[in-house]
Amino acid sequence: MNILPGQINGHNDLLEKKHRRDYQYLENKLTDDGHDTEELVRKIKALQVAIPSWALGTGGTRFGRFPGGGEPRNLEEKIGDIGTLHKLNRSSGAISLHIPWDIPDDPKAILDLAKDNDLVFDAVNSNTFQDQPRQAHSYKFGSLAHTEEAIRDRSIAHNLEVIKYGELLGSKSLTVWLADGTCFPGQQNFRKAFMRTLESLQEIYAGLPHDWKMLIEYKPYEPNFYSTVIQDWGSSHLLAGKLGNRAFSLVDLGHHLPNTNIEQIVALLIMEGKLGGFHFNDSKYGDDDLTVGSIKPYQLFLVFNELVEGIENPALSNPTPAWMIDASHNVKDPLEDLLQSVEAIKIAYARALLVKQHELEEAREQNDVVKAQELLQNAFRTDVRPLVAEARLRSTGALDPVGMFRELAIRQQLITERGHKTISTGL
Amino acid sequence: MNILPGQINGHNDLLEKKHRRDYQYLENKLTDDGHDTEELVRKIKALQVAIPSWALGTGGTRFGRFPGGGEPRNLEEKIGDIGTLHKLNRSSGAISLHIPWDIPDDPKAILDLAKDNDLVFDAVNSNTFQDQPRQAHSYKFGSLAHTEEAIRDRSIAHNLEVIKYGELLGSKSLTVWLADGTCFPGQQNFRKAFMRTLESLQEIYAGLPHDWKMLIEYKPYEPNFYSTVIQDWGSSHLLAGKLGNRAFSLVDLGHHLPNTNIEQIVALLIMEGKLGGFHFNDSKYGDDDLTVGSIKPYQLFLVFNELVEGIENPALSNPTPAWMIDASHNVKDPLEDLLQSVEAIKIAYARALLVKQHELEEAREQNDVVKAQELLQNAFRTDVRPLVAEARLRSTGALDPVGMFRELAIRQQLITERGHKTISTGL
Amino acid sequence: MNILPGQINGHNDLLEKKHRRDYQYLENKLTDDGHDTEELVRKIKALQVAIPSWALGTGGTRFGRFPGGGEPRNLEEKIGDIGTLHKLNRSSGAISLHIPWDIPDDPKAILDLAKDNDLVFDAVNSNTFQDQPRQAHSYKFGSLAHTEEAIRDRSIAHNLEVIKYGELLGSKSLTVWLADGTCFPGQQNFRKAFMRTLESLQEIYAGLPHDWKMLIEYKPYEPNFYSTVIQDWGSSHLLAGKLGNRAFSLVDLGHHLPNTNIEQIVALLIMEGKLGGFHFNDSKYGDDDLTVGSIKPYQLFLVFNELVEGIENPALSNPTPAWMIDASHNVKDPLEDLLQSVEAIKIAYARALLVKQHELEEAREQNDVVKAQELLQNAFRTDVRPLVAEARLRSTGALDPVGMFRELAIRQQLITERGHKTISTGL
Amino acid sequence: MNILPGQINGHNDLLEKKHRRDYQYLENKLTDDGHDTEELVRKIKALQVAIPSWALGTGGTRFGRFPGGGEPRNLEEKIGDIGTLHKLNRSSGAISLHIPWDIPDDPKAILDLAKDNDLVFDAVNSNTFQDQPRQAHSYKFGSLAHTEEAIRDRSIAHNLEVIKYGELLGSKSLTVWLADGTCFPGQQNFRKAFMRTLESLQEIYAGLPHDWKMLIEYKPYEPNFYSTVIQDWGSSHLLAGKLGNRAFSLVDLGHHLPNTNIEQIVALLIMEGKLGGFHFNDSKYGDDDLTVGSIKPYQLFLVFNELVEGIENPALSNPTPAWMIDASHNVKDPLEDLLQSVEAIKIAYARALLVKQHELEEAREQNDVVKAQELLQNAFRTDVRPLVAEARLRSTGALDPVGMFRELAIRQQLITERGHKTISTGL
Repeated sequence: MNILPGQINGHNDLLEKKHRRDYQYLENKLTDDGHDTEELVRKIKALQVAIPSWALGTGGTRFGRFPGGGEPRNLEEKIGDIGTLHKLNRSSGAISLHIPWDIPDDPKAILDLAKDNDLVFDAVNSNTFQDQPRQAHSYKFGSLAHTEEAIRDRSIAHNLEVIKYGELLGSKSLTVWLADGTCFPGQQNFRKAFMRTLESLQEIYAGLPHDWKMLIEYKPYEPNFYSTVIQDWGSSHLLAGKLGNRAFSLVDLGHHLPNTNIEQIVALLIMEGKLGGFHFNDSKYGDDDLTVGSIKPYQLFLVFNELVEGIENPALSNPTPAWMIDASHNVKDPLEDLLQSVEAIKIAYARALLVKQHELEEAREQNDVVKAQELLQNAFRTDVRPLVAEARLRSTGALDPVGMFRELAIRQQLITERGHKTISTGL
Repeated sequence: MNILPGQINGHNDLLEKKHRRDYQYLENKLTDDGHDTEELVRKIKALQVAIPSWALGTGGTRFGRFPGGGEPRNLEEKIGDIGTLHKLNRSSGAISLHIPWDIPDDPKAILDLAKDNDLVFDAVNSNTFQDQPRQAHSYKFGSLAHTEEAIRDRSIAHNLEVIKYGELLGSKSLTVWLADGTCFPGQQNFRKAFMRTLESLQEIYAGLPHDWKMLIEYKPYEPNFYSTVIQDWGSSHLLAGKLGNRAFSLVDLGHHLPNTNIEQIVALLIMEGKLGGFHFNDSKYGDDDLTVGSIKPYQLFLVFNELVEGIENPALSNPTPAWMIDASHNVKDPLEDLLQSVEAIKIAYARALLVKQHELEEAREQNDVVKAQELLQNAFRTDVRPLVAEARLRSTGALDPVGMFRELAIRQQLITERGHKTISTGL
Repeated sequence: MNILPGQINGHNDLLEKKHRRDYQYLENKLTDDGHDTEELVRKIKALQVAIPSWALGTGGTRFGRFPGGGEPRNLEEKIGDIGTLHKLNRSSGAISLHIPWDIPDDPKAILDLAKDNDLVFDAVNSNTFQDQPRQAHSYKFGSLAHTEEAIRDRSIAHNLEVIKYGELLGSKSLTVWLADGTCFPGQQNFRKAFMRTLESLQEIYAGLPHDWKMLIEYKPYEPNFYSTVIQDWGSSHLLAGKLGNRAFSLVDLGHHLPNTNIEQIVALLIMEGKLGGFHFNDSKYGDDDLTVGSIKPYQLFLVFNELVEGIENPALSNPTPAWMIDASHNVKDPLEDLLQSVEAIKIAYARALLVKQHELEEAREQNDVVKAQELLQNAFRTDVRPLVAEARLRSTGALDPVGMFRELAIRQQLITERGHKTISTGL
Repeated sequence: MNILPGQINGHNDLLEKKHRRDYQYLENKLTDDGHDTEELVRKIKALQVAIPSWALGTGGTRFGRFPGGGEPRNLEEKIGDIGTLHKLNRSSGAISLHIPWDIPDDPKAILDLAKDNDLVFDAVNSNTFQDQPRQAHSYKFGSLAHTEEAIRDRSIAHNLEVIKYGELLGSKSLTVWLADGTCFPGQQNFRKAFMRTLESLQEIYAGLPHDWKMLIEYKPYEPNFYSTVIQDWGSSHLLAGKLGNRAFSLVDLGHHLPNTNIEQIVALLIMEGKLGGFHFNDSKYGDDDLTVGSIKPYQLFLVFNELVEGIENPALSNPTPAWMIDASHNVKDPLEDLLQSVEAIKIAYARALLVKQHELEEAREQNDVVKAQELLQNAFRTDVRPLVAEARLRSTGALDPVGMFRELAIRQQLITERGHKTISTGL
């Protein structure tokens, strides 16, 4: 599936008049309001969000899976799909691999293909939550936290192998998400499981290249339904602290108990210089893995408000986190869905950039709660879509990525190429 | 506190140029997009949201209360405060009384005062969840559901008395919110408590004037922490159905368990023609009674989307519900807070009016989930503030109500008039 | 796998001395306390809980499945497994089939096999939430609520077919659990989806034999993560009421939002004579489908307290509900797990039988909350295991079913018979 | 209110025969099962739970308060009430004071009175969440985290003053519970608020006597409804770690988001040697402050299982935490309620002592989940009330504390002494 520059230009030509009107109005308005619109556009252009290799196929639940057609059958086709997204939105220029679903058999060729698609490789992800077809040991009762040393060793070796693949492709971080935990009270000694996990992570950390980060994800439940070893940011942070200064916490928006104030967690991790990565999705009930911004866009904005304020803050030392979408589900075309997710992230980011941080701090100092709320709401209520579109336009992307995806009948072409019944590896 | 038309004009003159720019752009854009902006402005103007008499003072929690100054000391001053709000936003032209906090000793004078302030009396609210100073019977163990007939009778009589006051003031509905329930397993026979409640309500219903509605509120917990007799929409609807066609359910946004899909409940109640009233507020954890739209503005929009589509639907017979703010808390000036709440309601309403219902239905018929989401998001992401401001301007309200409230130093004047240590009746 | 009476006797002989000591003590204590222990044993013996055909294999989550060995490969082997359970605990004398996973190709032979195992067929379950291999229409966007008439018709026909199979086997009720719903705001018109569901159910109801019940299950979320058409008891009850007097609600313990007071729902449905069935499991977070009583045994007891009081109440007309376990997961031997679940149900039931209903009602009438709590806690804190064991003993079951399952090395035998890699149909 | 030893003996004489029967049976059974019953009784006797001074009056909610009569009017009467409890159950031999509600004007006399009642003073509690009548600064916008230095200084000074009172009375720890937080997004800079809190705590810590502990409580929400500065164990632990080795976390069972696995948090804090205190209560929805064990007794048992295993573990260095009840509500006699709470704690403790830790560890090592569950359930299902009663009997307490409280008509006597309309200080 190759999209030609001419096609994008053709698409944009038809929409540009309206876009000009909208952008000009917004530019004037923001300029009047003291914003540097060129700087805004520059920042919005720069934000790239990695696409995980497992988000390109239909997600599914334990109750069933309803695959659409034309799903990528191998790593090459996954790179092709992300390349398509990136051509359309110029904001998805990174791919996050999942091993063993995406083992690069010929790393050189994979690298070249990625380069052709203008993609780099972001964090690599290990998988010790599923047994693979010919796997000798089972992760049924855990991996890095398992009671049996042999299985812990196997899990450690797998993570080291993942690092090796990542090095071949230019990745600079390893994301560790552990399903380890229990379904029933009594099943596990909480302390011992935590200590075994720590020791296993220490062995992996020892094999981490010096310019790499280890990102430790947390999650309260699922697939284990009584306890999870790394259940919250407190546990993740405790591990990261014990591991060393290249270990960080990774926040996934969906991995929290009901009503958690996630933006506060983000702020505290940044305060400690320990926010290493971010997985975007949305949810209403649990780890629903829905399209970013589809359920709680204001929460997403509040999270971005912390990210913008914290990460650009020269007084703080938090490195720029790895950004990745981690959503996957049943009822949309996965590529259209990813376009919607990236757009929602960019909108949230643009809105957060409009927050007048200086005035906000002043209102806070005076406990002017009404004013502080207005400052956030003014930013959030502003229609920033022209700003995001302008950034895309200047990066040679499409003014309406989903619209263009449909105009070009990309899904139909993929079905023709790959067939109706393909099932992507992954969840 | 009297705001003169000249003061509002003066305020508006300074802001009108920017407003004109913003409104003109939006008007063009919406017109291009097929909307009838005059009709939109007309509808937005028409929406009036009742202010409850207990929202004018600082709210407080069980841990403490931090009253600001200048709170209204009696019903007359409450009417004055709502009059001030209405002058500023022209959208709060109704007052919802709470008995016994606001017994009108001289109904005629109260009616005149309300008229002078351009206010009408919306639903009246009974209170059987607190013991009043010289009250003979206690509501400690319930009211309409109490095991003792004498206390049930007293509670029924109180509700009938509330109706009587409401009649004197031109109200047309009675809101019944019951705290009745239990704190401990075993405390109550669920069935008997429900049946006693039904029988008590039937006696009140028998005394309901023919042109009145009875609005039955539900709430899962607080102040009772194990069970509440009318705990959810199912219970409220069951009661309303058994009572008759002038009994309806009332939805309070804060009265739901975590993660409830409230917009679906709204849709089903409208389907049954049984949505009688709506209490607006916002919350993150429980019945937090925060400013409307301050936490989950997208949920508020989705609720309004159901209200707009359902209530204007000629095929459905649901009457227009009673709209009321029901928020109250500790850290803002209550009047500024109410201005923010009304603004958030109007913004949600305006956004909902922009949803292209016809296209949405088409996308739904085709299970085009991506398109359906875009239609909602397009409406939600539009900056409708100029539309709401225009509606206010045409109604002789202020372009920036909170700003004008501060320019006129209204709170300081109220403190001068009423003193620093006043405590409003209510929660 | 055949367990001989002699084997059970042998097992019991070794444990009977301790059991006698324990039972005698408890019998004396309860008799002193005014209970009729013979009546208690009789009631406990009589309670039979259906085993669903899908609970005999490892459950799995969307993240993976870790099947143990020796899982049943067909309906015959499933009946064999339930027969084994029933021989051990004499409390699982019913099987609940799931179509199309368990289509009886030769109903006569299946009936004979069930009879040999002393089993009857309880409610039959339809499945319109998964696409089957050669299925022409897809349930991706719903079934009974689908926008397309053809798919609704197909779903209706499937349910009628399920009834037909049920009739062949002597079932008397159809359980309808619908996954229909949405993952994203806007995806569906709530009202239309509900009305389409009602119309589809009406067609099925028209085909329901006169001595059958239709049981309508509800669930707030999963596999859909924004809305579910039948999301709570209120919706289920609304449908049941519109359908007629052979339609009932079915309560699954795991199908509720966080913190729901389920026992109150049970009480209200009984009050309305509309509680038709009950699915037992336990959970901490969502529909975790864990072993009954493993997480919240007191809640289970409170639910049974309502069931005991309500269903045996001559003043109420609720029929005895269909009892079924609906649990399924990853980390236990499914048969051991079911033995634990049935034991937990019997313990909860026995404890509920010990509640002194008359004294409880008296305490309630006097609002003696402390006493009411003590009455429930006294029942709950009593060690009723000897009572449950005695009931099992008198029914020729094993004193320690899990212990005996292990003594006989039943799982190892099943693995020998069926192999290591079998995967049971079902979730 | 003085209870004479003869009265208790008289009460016990009537119940002792049944108690002997029950205890003898249980003693035999447990001995057969390998337990040392004398050791069990000794441990159960030794557990003392502090009573907070604010739990002796009716609790109340923001919606109202329904005081019973005879509530203590001053510190002396509070000590009297706790003395009464302790005479009855011999397990409440400690009092936890709350300043400024309970400032000891004459510490010497207070100490003597406590000694007469066989009571010691446990942790002292500061209060910076309420403004006191003549207080110059307001805690409306926070205390230790306040933006204004003057208010932080005042808050620090208050805590140091609380320590001073505590020293006079022999307390050895200060509990800091902060309501500091926000009701609205934007209101506060999360990082700055955390850092200000840390700095304030450091100043208090500098004034902490060398043999004292500082216990840092956490809570996700209420009275603030958007964010709380110390919102979870992660934040509390971060602060305790930065403060030093005399700073610890304090766990209150009610201070968690829905579905939190509290026992795991307990285990991790013990692992880190940082669990300093424990507040017991129960809840269904939020911080409901209900009677201990009234809603989720199995969770309480699981928490005790961690406490027993962790604190008695010689390999771990966690000091024995301060135990306190922290419950308070509307519908029970507060003294009866406290007797029920202490009994529930002792029952949970006794059950946890019955867990065969060695076998449990073995089952865990083998991932025998079924067995691990049975080991816990066997302990939980055992009726341990005779064990707890025996421990009370041997300590000269009453066999049935609530029963004796009623026999002696203690509440009526208190009403006679103190009057009907007394309102205890506190919430």
